[in-house]
Amino acid sequence: MAFKTHEHLFTPGRALSSYPTLIKRPNNVAAILESQVARIIESQETLYADGRHALLLIFQGMDCAGKDSTIKHVLSGVNPQGVDVANFREPTRNEVAHSYLWRYWRQMPRRGLMGVFNRSHYEEVLVMRVHPELFEERRMPHQDLDDAFWASRCADLAYLEDHLTRNGIHVVKFFLNLSREEQRERLLGRIDREHKNWKFDPRDVKERQHWDDYRTAYAEAIERTHTGECPWYIIPADHKPTTRALVAQIIAEKLDAMPIRIPHLGTKAREELATARAVLMKD
Amino acid sequence: MAFKTHEHLFTPGRALSSYPTLIKRPNNVAAILESQVARIIESQETLYADGRHALLLIFQGMDCAGKDSTIKHVLSGVNPQGVDVANFREPTRNEVAHSYLWRYWRQMPRRGLMGVFNRSHYEEVLVMRVHPELFEERRMPHQDLDDAFWASRCADLAYLEDHLTRNGIHVVKFFLNLSREEQRERLLGRIDREHKNWKFDPRDVKERQHWDDYRTAYAEAIERTHTGECPWYIIPADHKPTTRALVAQIIAEKLDAMPIRIPHLGTKAREELATARAVLMKD
Repeated sequence: MAFKTHEHLFTPGRALSSYPTLIKRPNNVAAILESQVARIIESQETLYADGRHALLLIFQGMDCAGKDSTIKHVLSGVNPQGVDVANFREPTRNEVAHSYLWRYWRQMPRRGLMGVFNRSHYEEVLVMRVHPELFEERRMPHQDLDDAFWASRCADLAYLEDHLTRNGIHVVKFFLNLSREEQRERLLGRIDREHKNWKFDPRDVKERQHWDDYRTAYAEAIERTHTGECPWYIIPADHKPTTRALVAQIIAEKLDAMPIRIPHLGTKAREELATARAVLMKD
Repeated sequence: MAFKTHEHLFTPGRALSSYPTLIKRPNNVAAILESQVARIIESQETLYADGRHALLLIFQGMDCAGKDSTIKHVLSGVNPQGVDVANFREPTRNEVAHSYLWRYWRQMPRRGLMGVFNRSHYEEVLVMRVHPELFEERRMPHQDLDDAFWASRCADLAYLEDHLTRNGIHVVKFFLNLSREEQRERLLGRIDREHKNWKFDPRDVKERQHWDDYRTAYAEAIERTHTGECPWYIIPADHKPTTRALVAQIIAEKLDAMPIRIPHLGTKAREELATARAVLMKD
């Protein structure tokens, strides 16, 4: 049993609002998660040994969409030496003084690794779009914040990902598609359950008031940056175990499709192995 | 007295070999250097106070072309807090495991500063082109190293600089145009004069054998990445005092043309100043 993952691939021209936030799921999502994680663990070793390619996983979604918990459950079994997680919260003063791509570039995974972006360069066409006052607050050079500007920002992001792909860093993007109702339940859960209190941030409730603006910004960004090579997946996010199993399967399938293999040694390297063996035998 | 700097701006379609390595120079290059450096020092304060823009200066040229000494003589008087110099020697293992732009991105200047790249992202279409064996040595993903590949690399560089410009980081590029004969003299000088020995690297003599390949690679890279916004200047480099004075003048003129100014305070900030003044007076 497994998901038909292509059903969750973004389709250009299809409205974001038409994608489900909950799917009639297989009963055995826990078993799917377990088997897909096992595949990921195996492929990650190959990715690391091969060393010519990387996989960058991008997680976006509204507050409470389950980004942290999906990363935790899908990647916890993987050798942490092969995984590099970057968490993009509010930028520092030094970060905003640079070109907006700088902080994301600094955290790009090297080849051989799985990189995880918990939030990502997409924040620049989401938060900045919903809060244009930040341009002045951050003393950015003057820009006309018209549609052409946002299109050029999305073109920057698409070009960045195309560049990465051409250089061996493959990109898969997940939008965790949470409903407004479920977000309300999860925020209340963070308030009402004491051991969840630490995750509650009053600003999340404030940002929730911009729900529609964020959805519009997401819809445009996804439409403008979805490509065959660097696709967006729209993941139903109202039931966490389903989210995790589905994401795990997409990652496992992507790793399977990558041109990675355990390196085979050439003649010279084999001779070196033989010499090393002889030295050890005489030791 | 000053140079006609536009005469040293690269002209698309004009062969690199037709640019002079030595010009009939004004007698007073030392005075020109001094007055242009004074202009730079003044503008740098405005750039810093304004904080919305940066200037990235790129220095490229064959070994011994005078990159270090030009940077030293042109920028020594400038407040070092406002200058950020990055020197790109041979990349580390960690650097080559990333996308090739990563190490350059990490060193991008923040807005408010003058960034100096002593060698730069152009090394990727120079050294790598002359030494394609590095692709395998560095375990890069397989690439067909044909003309389309090198064109796409140059397109990456041009896109990067366009992105920077759109985000307030302006770019000026200098090719220090040294003759093969003068390089020979300078290398001999590093061998024969004891206090210059530390600058001598036997690999420079080896690289000199690839002189024509490097010139061809430079010519293509410059042709493909020269734009009105991010221009290349071809600087005669056989006489160091001329090189320095000319580079200083081009930088001073560029700073003059940038949309920077000491910030003027708004009404609210002025009121805060007045309040602060009152507090201090009562202290």
